[in-house]
Amino acid sequence: MTPDVLPSWRPGASRDAVVRFLDQARAVPVEDRVACFDNDGTLWCERPRYAQLDFFVDALRTALARDPGLAERAEYAALLTGDRAARDEMGLGRIALALTELFEGISAQEFTARVRDFFDRAVHPTLDRPLRTLTYVPMLELLDELRRADFSVLIVTGGGTEFVRAVSQQLYGVPPEAVAGSLIDYDFLPTSDGSGPRLVRASRLVGPANEGAAKVTHIQTQLGRRPILAAGNSGGDREMLEWAAAGEGPTLALLVDHDDGDREFAYTSTAETFAEPEPITQVGARLGWTVVSMARDWETVFDGSGTGTTP
Amino acid sequence: MTPDVLPSWRPGASRDAVVRFLDQARAVPVEDRVACFDNDGTLWCERPRYAQLDFFVDALRTALARDPGLAERAEYAALLTGDRAARDEMGLGRIALALTELFEGISAQEFTARVRDFFDRAVHPTLDRPLRTLTYVPMLELLDELRRADFSVLIVTGGGTEFVRAVSQQLYGVPPEAVAGSLIDYDFLPTSDGSGPRLVRASRLVGPANEGAAKVTHIQTQLGRRPILAAGNSGGDREMLEWAAAGEGPTLALLVDHDDGDREFAYTSTAETFAEPEPITQVGARLGWTVVSMARDWETVFDGSGTGTTP
Repeated sequence: MTPDVLPSWRPGASRDAVVRFLDQARAVPVEDRVACFDNDGTLWCERPRYAQLDFFVDALRTALARDPGLAERAEYAALLTGDRAARDEMGLGRIALALTELFEGISAQEFTARVRDFFDRAVHPTLDRPLRTLTYVPMLELLDELRRADFSVLIVTGGGTEFVRAVSQQLYGVPPEAVAGSLIDYDFLPTSDGSGPRLVRASRLVGPANEGAAKVTHIQTQLGRRPILAAGNSGGDREMLEWAAAGEGPTLALLVDHDDGDREFAYTSTAETFAEPEPITQVGARLGWTVVSMARDWETVFDGSGTGTTP
Repeated sequence: MTPDVLPSWRPGASRDAVVRFLDQARAVPVEDRVACFDNDGTLWCERPRYAQLDFFVDALRTALARDPGLAERAEYAALLTGDRAARDEMGLGRIALALTELFEGISAQEFTARVRDFFDRAVHPTLDRPLRTLTYVPMLELLDELRRADFSVLIVTGGGTEFVRAVSQQLYGVPPEAVAGSLIDYDFLPTSDGSGPRLVRASRLVGPANEGAAKVTHIQTQLGRRPILAAGNSGGDREMLEWAAAGEGPTLALLVDHDDGDREFAYTSTAETFAEPEPITQVGARLGWTVVSMARDWETVFDGSGTGTTP
């Protein structure tokens, strides 16, 4: 492996583990070269808020301009007033599902267009650069390297499947069918008047939200693969990383540790270890995962050019 | 388009329509070049029985050798005794779900291995050649031509998603994540003893069986695409073909008419047209689909070499 591979990864144990895995994977049959990446906090910045929540709030403001009465709804009010206690009591799942109703009845094409329009103009609240440029350069390099090694690169996100699909090709080179996430259903509306059928967004989830054990079952049902590399950063990625690490042959469980408060944000997610909360970095150390320190292992975090594409 | 393109398609209106569509699609953005193919009766032979039913019966015989009591179960008895009336009364869905229980608790890898083992030895009951060689050569040529034109080629089958995924790469060059079908759920089993988690097949469907309107909603939810080409052969493909045909820009709705009793089987599926049954070929003619006559439009049906790969 030449030194110009993975240039944004500093020499050290993490880069060594990645390079060693890429070497070993050459002996794995191509159909088993499968890598699954979480998105929020693993491929792009998730602080101070998930990009999808910003998108929802943006859509809510647009909807309020037409229908001010929406502000009365409890889930929306909790967001708009910044009432943290109310938000935490309701849970993000309930709020997200309520926000999904803002898109009920539109087509997938319209939804995709709205997501792309949002990314064309959204700016990060503190890092002062376009949201679309807040993908992690070292991870983009890893995606490229994996594809060069004939891996299938899949995104397994806790976020909305179609929110991520709208930008996955542009940001990551990953096509829609290679993205599994929390999935909103559609309704097929036939017509008898010759105008052609329509397919419209519902506001109900297909199956459980894509976190924890659901990530593993969805990898199998929606993507039909078993990963030998899984990358994540939070308690919701734990089962997916365990699943990859438990495979035969070379495997890599990669955990991004957000320990860089200067260039990004410093925080640690917890996992439920048989009902006891435990920092996910501690879980990773205990289970022998490759824990990547953003502060020490990454020379670059975000692309300096600000275009959001791989340099 | 050179004459050596689609060599198994005879000159005529059907081949002209396909070639014209391929030409027109060059003006379509690559991300919108999406083609969805039904499998049974569209990409491979489905008569006298679905290949998956043969696979199930084969597995049932193996299970009976260990546990003869299984023969008492109503769904299995209807199959084993060839009691057509009992089969029709129960419906194929109920029988298929009962047969799925034969694989409950095994891993996806084991299931895939069993499907591949079956295809290694299964022979068609009347055509006297390996089942794996009963893919339609003109359709394989079309898949290749679409990929050359940068199409994403997706399989949208009424059959079991993972049954088709087990052979989709080998037979069609289509990876697992590009197959959507009738989907069986999995259970993730964590362990506390350090032996690593397991993922095992359940015997319950995720969502509805993949027929009719469900094919369209599943194309969106599982694959995240809108097809501009859809190909099918039965009433269960009607909505998918209507959906493709209703798109903007060039579209192609391709219906395979099984009118070749000499080389294959002669039969016509019916569709429910606003509650009235109507032959699907009549629906296709009425809606302006390209109805492909196997007898007249195809020079070759099956690969002469008997290897099951594209010549």
